[in-house]
Amino acid sequence: MYSGRTAKVLRENKIKTGDRVLVESRGRKYEGILMPGTRGRDPSNVIVKLDNGYNVGVKLEKITKLKSGEKIVFKPSDIKSEKSKKPHVSILGCGGTIASRVEYRTGAVFPAFSPGDMLLSFPELKDIARISGRKVFDLLSEDMSPSHWKIIAKQTAKEINGRAEGVVLMHGTDTMHYTSAALSFMLQELPVPVVLVGAQRSSDRGSSDNAVNLVSSVLAAAQSDIAEVSVCMHAGMSDDYCHLNPGTRVRKMHTSRRDAFRSIDSKPFACVDFNGKKIEYLRDDYRKRGRGRVVPDTKINDNVALLYAYPGIKPSVIKSVGRDHDGLVIAGTGLGHVPTNPFGDRHAKSILPEIESLIKSGVPVAVAPQTIYGRLNMNVYTAGRMLKESGVIGDGCDWTPECALVKMMFVLGHTKTMEKIKKMMLTNYAGEISERSLPQTFLS
Amino acid sequence: MYSGRTAKVLRENKIKTGDRVLVESRGRKYEGILMPGTRGRDPSNVIVKLDNGYNVGVKLEKITKLKSGEKIVFKPSDIKSEKSKKPHVSILGCGGTIASRVEYRTGAVFPAFSPGDMLLSFPELKDIARISGRKVFDLLSEDMSPSHWKIIAKQTAKEINGRAEGVVLMHGTDTMHYTSAALSFMLQELPVPVVLVGAQRSSDRGSSDNAVNLVSSVLAAAQSDIAEVSVCMHAGMSDDYCHLNPGTRVRKMHTSRRDAFRSIDSKPFACVDFNGKKIEYLRDDYRKRGRGRVVPDTKINDNVALLYAYPGIKPSVIKSVGRDHDGLVIAGTGLGHVPTNPFGDRHAKSILPEIESLIKSGVPVAVAPQTIYGRLNMNVYTAGRMLKESGVIGDGCDWTPECALVKMMFVLGHTKTMEKIKKMMLTNYAGEISERSLPQTFLS
Repeated sequence: MYSGRTAKVLRENKIKTGDRVLVESRGRKYEGILMPGTRGRDPSNVIVKLDNGYNVGVKLEKITKLKSGEKIVFKPSDIKSEKSKKPHVSILGCGGTIASRVEYRTGAVFPAFSPGDMLLSFPELKDIARISGRKVFDLLSEDMSPSHWKIIAKQTAKEINGRAEGVVLMHGTDTMHYTSAALSFMLQELPVPVVLVGAQRSSDRGSSDNAVNLVSSVLAAAQSDIAEVSVCMHAGMSDDYCHLNPGTRVRKMHTSRRDAFRSIDSKPFACVDFNGKKIEYLRDDYRKRGRGRVVPDTKINDNVALLYAYPGIKPSVIKSVGRDHDGLVIAGTGLGHVPTNPFGDRHAKSILPEIESLIKSGVPVAVAPQTIYGRLNMNVYTAGRMLKESGVIGDGCDWTPECALVKMMFVLGHTKTMEKIKKMMLTNYAGEISERSLPQTFLS
Repeated sequence: MYSGRTAKVLRENKIKTGDRVLVESRGRKYEGILMPGTRGRDPSNVIVKLDNGYNVGVKLEKITKLKSGEKIVFKPSDIKSEKSKKPHVSILGCGGTIASRVEYRTGAVFPAFSPGDMLLSFPELKDIARISGRKVFDLLSEDMSPSHWKIIAKQTAKEINGRAEGVVLMHGTDTMHYTSAALSFMLQELPVPVVLVGAQRSSDRGSSDNAVNLVSSVLAAAQSDIAEVSVCMHAGMSDDYCHLNPGTRVRKMHTSRRDAFRSIDSKPFACVDFNGKKIEYLRDDYRKRGRGRVVPDTKINDNVALLYAYPGIKPSVIKSVGRDHDGLVIAGTGLGHVPTNPFGDRHAKSILPEIESLIKSGVPVAVAPQTIYGRLNMNVYTAGRMLKESGVIGDGCDWTPECALVKMMFVLGHTKTMEKIKKMMLTNYAGEISERSLPQTFLS
């Protein structure tokens, strides 16, 4: 899968993926197995699996074959749509554990999705939908950036406008809830479901959740009438059900559990019964499936920072980070507080002057709850009132810190006027600000 | 309660708390009701309740009485210990909603604790223990700083070494879990229970939780044999039970609910049955009540920052915050990841070089899970291995971001050697790193 000059160099040296090679680059030597190159990576780089298990991307300067290896099979997709009345679901691969294969000879887990592979692994997908698909890129979740959100939004829209009746996005889990929030803002007024799906355990582990999650996500994309961005992941510890969580309200709440993804202060849209192969709706207040095109709105400004408020936070943190960014979201304590020291305690340090001067200089500042759950109320205590008075945005909102960050990036892509920013931030576009809190949704 | 020159100026002008005054200070005028001054505040400040409801602390330069008001009664404590066999529990007031009184004439909620007030409000406390107590300070929770933790630790030790058989600390809820973590490290090998307690709703609200929480905390301090730092707050939505949550594992998980405090990846020590006035133990692996003194270890270095990793985080955030601090904790994604971009994706930005250069310059960097729940495992994915290899601390730990921050402050108070820092960080001192994960503790 290497192209251009890199492919030429490999051909000339009779080097194939799987060979043991020595790459010399920028004065350093890298010895290991040549791994397949994939789209979305720098084409002048080759991927080498070092003996310590790392895969490194190295600028190709000089390469020597040390020993021939087995060929690593890595087929791109060319599944043709079947002639059937089943709905057409497009699967786009964005990387992550779910789209990973274990290369058993080297023991590496690497993203290597093709719809052909998926149909081979999960033949039941054919009974649910006509599957087409392709790989957009194959990134580790933690490397996903706002630039990638734009690409995913555009590629998703392309599938929908090309008549896909549902889109499944295979994505790494670490930052899936940031991406789902971004897509919720970028792909408003959807005609069909857009379902993000991932796996907490790779497919070589007995406890892998990739089969249940993937099949459930295709079921949701094909059958459900939920024309919203959602995240489909295990609902509990067993392999029976997945939840379809709203894109702006979902959060990864555990490092490793299969049921790590939870709707925050909200019910999931639906439960997907994996065994019964059907959708059980839990709500009715979502956008229904319809016809029409979607116009992706990918105008964002990614120069926004997310900071945590904590005891002893130095005012310089707000100042130095704030002046480098066009917007700031602070995960405040309790109902939306930061150190303000209204009574002049001699040990306490207020960060309010720095926040005020940021806002005065045109940098919007929003607050989100570091408690994760619950709604901000900046009218109860002095600290909240002082923050609100200074122009900090967030009173009455129940957004997560992650969603508030993504929303501010989206808003700053659309306006630079402080009044407009404030108005847009406080407008509910995609379920990120709910009208009322549901007591039964706490920690459930 | 004003003292020194401030008291003299007030006396000379025949001004009493409750009077309507005009204060001129630093070229600005403040008109409102003169509120009581309290210990722990800058003695040269007066507190004025403005007509908009704010309480402001103003440096006293010139003050004029506009109108006499009713005297605001504000008695300091002088409860004498009763002659009885009941255990002696010392209540220390540190501020927060639980120690707040509503001043009905002005409508202000302000911290105003004295044990006399508490016994007046909750006569059942007399049946549980001989209560003594005093106010240490009366801070809003969000203004609590590492300097205050030291004062609280020393004052708590003073009570214990003065024969208190249990200590209750009334504290604001926003940052109570930071303080409980700090006290867990500073007050190791406790002979008696130290129980932090707060209220989510002030006492003027029908739904206030202050009675149940306070009485339960005194019960726990007097009767339980749990010689640990714990947080006593509502266990559920009803007024029947409180949980005693471990000081290093507790977290405020909701902005406003009375049952916001949860043990993370851990069971609470015990349940306090408010109606039955008894303790129901949920675990047995805690330090038991004994005899002896406690030596507070308040050596900390509060120059540590907590940052969030998120898609698109600029390397400059790590750099600018890192170089201003002696230690850094990053709330990483998933199993403990940050953007590392091992395959040279053209959109992704790695923050690994900045982390590496911080560590090389002697600034320790630790990771904690932004998922809140779950254990870090930096061996599964490339990003984790690269971070671990660079010297980042945290692999295998299940600490919360807040506890990791406090722990690094404590550790840096004891050593400056990177190897020693690493060793201390990875040593379990107070339950902050658990040996095994309990599945049933997720979101419960």
